[in-house]
Amino acid sequence: MTEQYVIRLRKNEERRIKAGHLWVFANEIDTRHTPLKDLPAGAACVVEDSRGKALGRALLSPHSLIAARLYSRDVKQELSRSFFKKRIEQALALREQLFDTPCYRLIFGEADGLPGLVVDRFADVLVVQTGSGAMEAHLDTIVSALDAVLSPSHIIAKNEAAARQIEGMERYTRALKGELLDEVSLSENGGNFVAPLAEGQKTGWFYDHRAARLKMQRLAGGARVLDVFSYCGGWGVQSAMAGAESVTCVDASQTALEYVHRNAELNGVADRISSLHGDAFAAMKQLIADGEKYDLVVLDPPAFIKRKKDFKNGLAGYHAINELAMRLVKPGGFLVSASCSMHMPADRLLEVIHSSARHIDRSVQVIGYEGQAADHPVHPAIAETAYLKSWFCRVQFSL
Amino acid sequence: MTEQYVIRLRKNEERRIKAGHLWVFANEIDTRHTPLKDLPAGAACVVEDSRGKALGRALLSPHSLIAARLYSRDVKQELSRSFFKKRIEQALALREQLFDTPCYRLIFGEADGLPGLVVDRFADVLVVQTGSGAMEAHLDTIVSALDAVLSPSHIIAKNEAAARQIEGMERYTRALKGELLDEVSLSENGGNFVAPLAEGQKTGWFYDHRAARLKMQRLAGGARVLDVFSYCGGWGVQSAMAGAESVTCVDASQTALEYVHRNAELNGVADRISSLHGDAFAAMKQLIADGEKYDLVVLDPPAFIKRKKDFKNGLAGYHAINELAMRLVKPGGFLVSASCSMHMPADRLLEVIHSSARHIDRSVQVIGYEGQAADHPVHPAIAETAYLKSWFCRVQFSL
Repeated sequence: MTEQYVIRLRKNEERRIKAGHLWVFANEIDTRHTPLKDLPAGAACVVEDSRGKALGRALLSPHSLIAARLYSRDVKQELSRSFFKKRIEQALALREQLFDTPCYRLIFGEADGLPGLVVDRFADVLVVQTGSGAMEAHLDTIVSALDAVLSPSHIIAKNEAAARQIEGMERYTRALKGELLDEVSLSENGGNFVAPLAEGQKTGWFYDHRAARLKMQRLAGGARVLDVFSYCGGWGVQSAMAGAESVTCVDASQTALEYVHRNAELNGVADRISSLHGDAFAAMKQLIADGEKYDLVVLDPPAFIKRKKDFKNGLAGYHAINELAMRLVKPGGFLVSASCSMHMPADRLLEVIHSSARHIDRSVQVIGYEGQAADHPVHPAIAETAYLKSWFCRVQFSL
Repeated sequence: MTEQYVIRLRKNEERRIKAGHLWVFANEIDTRHTPLKDLPAGAACVVEDSRGKALGRALLSPHSLIAARLYSRDVKQELSRSFFKKRIEQALALREQLFDTPCYRLIFGEADGLPGLVVDRFADVLVVQTGSGAMEAHLDTIVSALDAVLSPSHIIAKNEAAARQIEGMERYTRALKGELLDEVSLSENGGNFVAPLAEGQKTGWFYDHRAARLKMQRLAGGARVLDVFSYCGGWGVQSAMAGAESVTCVDASQTALEYVHRNAELNGVADRISSLHGDAFAAMKQLIADGEKYDLVVLDPPAFIKRKKDFKNGLAGYHAINELAMRLVKPGGFLVSASCSMHMPADRLLEVIHSSARHIDRSVQVIGYEGQAADHPVHPAIAETAYLKSWFCRVQFSL
């Protein structure tokens, strides 16, 4: 039996937890009763309300702003291999029901009851990210549990997020089972793709846009398509597979564009895909100067608003890029405009799109919306788990 | 040349119009300059800002709260047959790109640049609704334009909305071309359906849920399904077509349930569909008492919040029905929870779902969202054009 750690909340600070949230902030803890400084990071603890009533068990990060994250409402639940196995199986059951091929985000942190843990599955290859030191302390148990449930050929930790440095965590990529891989293979919406692992972004592929890419396909038939911030061609190649006449992928990374062409080749659409290397803003300005027009423009920028204080600048960036994109859409054509900034609410993004349209005398009809794909479930009490939005718009000259 | 009517806005009241909105409220008009009382309902007028700068042309309803609705930013644009033809053709182009069969909402009011006009297309049959006396005054021109663009066999006006009485408008159903029909036939998401016209709700069918029903199909394979407020079986029959093992449709209308069975028959799934006649609340309580459990529950209630002042009562209704529904979902099963109340924002509905879940110790993962289908485009400046939302949730016992 491990030592029983306890943190007690201050009066009324249990309300958010009772309403379903999983995070305990350091300033919510009654540190006179239960000092934080003696508690070990990564240990499990019981969370109590101010009167000593147990609310659940949490993973401790005593030196962080989020000092503890609930992983179970069952106060006796240990962070055992069988606990991780059960959570992984619950997550797997959802994905197996939703997808025909074993390529998806298998674990999405809080929303799958495993705060701070992300696992992407590329068939036999699992790529793991631990977002907190507390969860990282359990990596061996997690690997063992993943192995027991899925027997993957490879388990690779890709922990390169810049935010890790802030928490004083090492940044590294390491094979936890099998050897290290340069790239991963996957299928999505009926296409086959490769993506860089070591040199790639995040875990290599962005499964989160799968549902939006599927919705986009309906707009692609016979279209001239511009895919801005294309990365490895998830949007562009799928638009070609859906019948686009020609596709131009724009990205600042030469590596990403090499993958665009490989993915085009893999899906038999290489003859309809070209690429443009460079900054997206500059590339779009050049295309406007050249008089180019497209039936469909996809705008999938990186997060312009990484922290709350970047909001104003980020907003200006979204305005600028949406206006540029709309100038490139033929009258009656389509714009798919996405944002992965957690700090950019969906309705604000739509305001940006609409005011950018008004600014250049266009009118916009919203014909669809997609959030994150179902393998990135949202925890309804935790706004931070909902970050991705895509608006589907038809753009015309003002009616 | 018809007489040129003008309404002038009070100082600064042009801002909303300039930002893209199309409505002019009576209290925004400078009635000393341009008295409303002398203007004829249904006429076109020029809308000016307080300094006399023309902003566009609008359709007049001088005795209504919304005294005018912009239909064009071109101040010379008459309400001619060629104007209506052009708008219809623009709307048709979108639907023809999006859908394989000629069954959809062809015109969705403001969002298609035709304020107050709704036209649903059931192949050769068009069903028209005019939401304002002003638009109704142009019905002959509209029918002529529809005829020119589509040559339908039938054009039927179904103007039965209760709100018409408030505006002092007659409620009627009338054939404008061809004879009156009892029902309409349509296809949606690969299925064939019939729906009552004379006895049915609205124009007979709710195309607005098409995209949500498509998304629902992924959850239906092998499932035991409960379709609450089923109307003619749009959800239930499509879930059976997607592989549901058994489907129970609940509705208070015997006529609707007769159509459920006809639609089940039409699509070869009659052996897996049963119906339950009665009040949804009572029926769900009985099913709970009987110990019934489902893999998928679909909740598509009528608008519980018809007017803003109904908000509190309506909210209680959504709470009650979502809690009942969640009690009927097996652990790990799915709830699709919709609201068509314009006054119920999407995030509030999700709060209702989540707090209902917490109340009975369930946890919810949000795995998807759908708004209105693309044939009900949203005008981004006019909140009233966005009314429909469906949350897709996985329901488990609290983690």
